[in-house]
Amino acid sequence: MIAAGVDIGGSFIKAGLVDTANGRIKARCSVPFPKGQGEEAVWDLVDASVKKLLRSQKMDPADLGFVGVALPGTLSPDKTTVIHAYNLNFHGTLVYRPLQERFPHTPLAVMNDGDAATVAEHQFGVLKGARTAVLLTLGTGVGGGLILNGKLFGGGLGNGVEPGHMTLRYDGEPHICGNNGCVEMYCGAHGLATEKPEATPREIIEGIRRGDAESEKVLDRYTDALSSALVSIVNLLDPEVIALGGGISNAGAPLIDMTARKVREKSFFVAERRIVRASMGNDAGIVGAAVAGDCL
Amino acid sequence: MIAAGVDIGGSFIKAGLVDTANGRIKARCSVPFPKGQGEEAVWDLVDASVKKLLRSQKMDPADLGFVGVALPGTLSPDKTTVIHAYNLNFHGTLVYRPLQERFPHTPLAVMNDGDAATVAEHQFGVLKGARTAVLLTLGTGVGGGLILNGKLFGGGLGNGVEPGHMTLRYDGEPHICGNNGCVEMYCGAHGLATEKPEATPREIIEGIRRGDAESEKVLDRYTDALSSALVSIVNLLDPEVIALGGGISNAGAPLIDMTARKVREKSFFVAERRIVRASMGNDAGIVGAAVAGDCL
Repeated sequence: MIAAGVDIGGSFIKAGLVDTANGRIKARCSVPFPKGQGEEAVWDLVDASVKKLLRSQKMDPADLGFVGVALPGTLSPDKTTVIHAYNLNFHGTLVYRPLQERFPHTPLAVMNDGDAATVAEHQFGVLKGARTAVLLTLGTGVGGGLILNGKLFGGGLGNGVEPGHMTLRYDGEPHICGNNGCVEMYCGAHGLATEKPEATPREIIEGIRRGDAESEKVLDRYTDALSSALVSIVNLLDPEVIALGGGISNAGAPLIDMTARKVREKSFFVAERRIVRASMGNDAGIVGAAVAGDCL
Repeated sequence: MIAAGVDIGGSFIKAGLVDTANGRIKARCSVPFPKGQGEEAVWDLVDASVKKLLRSQKMDPADLGFVGVALPGTLSPDKTTVIHAYNLNFHGTLVYRPLQERFPHTPLAVMNDGDAATVAEHQFGVLKGARTAVLLTLGTGVGGGLILNGKLFGGGLGNGVEPGHMTLRYDGEPHICGNNGCVEMYCGAHGLATEKPEATPREIIEGIRRGDAESEKVLDRYTDALSSALVSIVNLLDPEVIALGGGISNAGAPLIDMTARKVREKSFFVAERRIVRASMGNDAGIVGAAVAGDCL
């Protein structure tokens, strides 16, 4: 089946046509997020992007099997409404109906982007075959998703999962999420930048990847926080595998190796547990949204 | 079916004969834990306790349907060996075979006591009917268990779950579990006592229950930590219901109400989520061990 996957982010709306049998993207496009123009402008761009891709492939819209739309926010349990998507400035925003009006003949689903990326890694990436697994995306924010019993876990009450807002320092500063000292404050780009204020996150990540001496210290402090966040998940769920994605994971092996060592040292359980870099990269949202039809 | 449930603790070994249809304990006994006498003395006491109960009920040992044994430690994934049970001083201790030798004709299982208590609450207590639920036991240590997809969750790799060793302060002091600043350090009896060093945990709990002004302050600081621990679980799993058990939960409604309010304030999700006191009390281990045959 050919499905459309759309990944709405605070900077870009990315869309792709995906062969759901193998996760390959046959065509893709990207447009800037229409900041400040209201939600209708966003849905129009989603619509236009998918239809442009169909035309580029000379595909009849009736042959499109599914449209999956991922966005960085919390959805209502019935997935019709965005409760909060801070980066998009959507709060209590209807999403299913306006999209359905634009794709009236195609099955459609809206999902959290961390869930979409998790589905992509589980179907085609480093979480393939896992019964219990976690994806943590380390970017401006920290998101992710859970595989439990071999399937995407959408939260016990259907609200989703937000590993980036678990507690890392209970007497830390308050965060907009409501918690104090949540994981995102220390493990997101802001937390990384705090460790070396004179450099940008990208410069820090490059330094870590190159293995320069000063970056080693930054990495040491950063992984103290990140490993403790992962230990919370490990000691609660004892997962087989944890994948790290998002921009910060571009720091590569030095980040993964130091994090894995510290998680092993701090974990309650002695176990062969894999901690690996996510493999779907920037395509995870598109691919996961496109193939999520069977998982939601 | 009549099953035996045995709850091995660092102070007492408690045993009961349980009607698995309704969780009722038909007969029970308790003997001091034989400190420093080695594990064979423990298995002998388990054996003697169960056989004494059978005699008291004029029951033929052949009519005993199951023996479940719960203990405060981590078991190997195949549940034959105690990896660590610090309070019992068991480390790498064989447990299944010596017990099977004593009950050669009865199905037998060994489990973590937090898992046993969780099964008891799920079958007969406040977690009944829940698909996604958590029990946290607040005692000297902090333990608990998870219900996922309506069943006891034994960990992705089979090592169990240890919510008491999730991270609460990543730059806190090291704990014997390997982590720094884990939940148990702030939410166990030691953490409660830190808030009011001149009183025993029991006196503090009594004061909170009575609602005296000074204890209110202790409760406020304690629930800052406890609520943040629960928020980690809420933001990761979005459970329907969380039950609080163990000795500290005897503080009752003041503890539950303040904790529930703070969890609501700090949670990412807006949801009707129940936070309640566990209802099986000191019997949870016996009952859960006895009925766990179908859950493990």
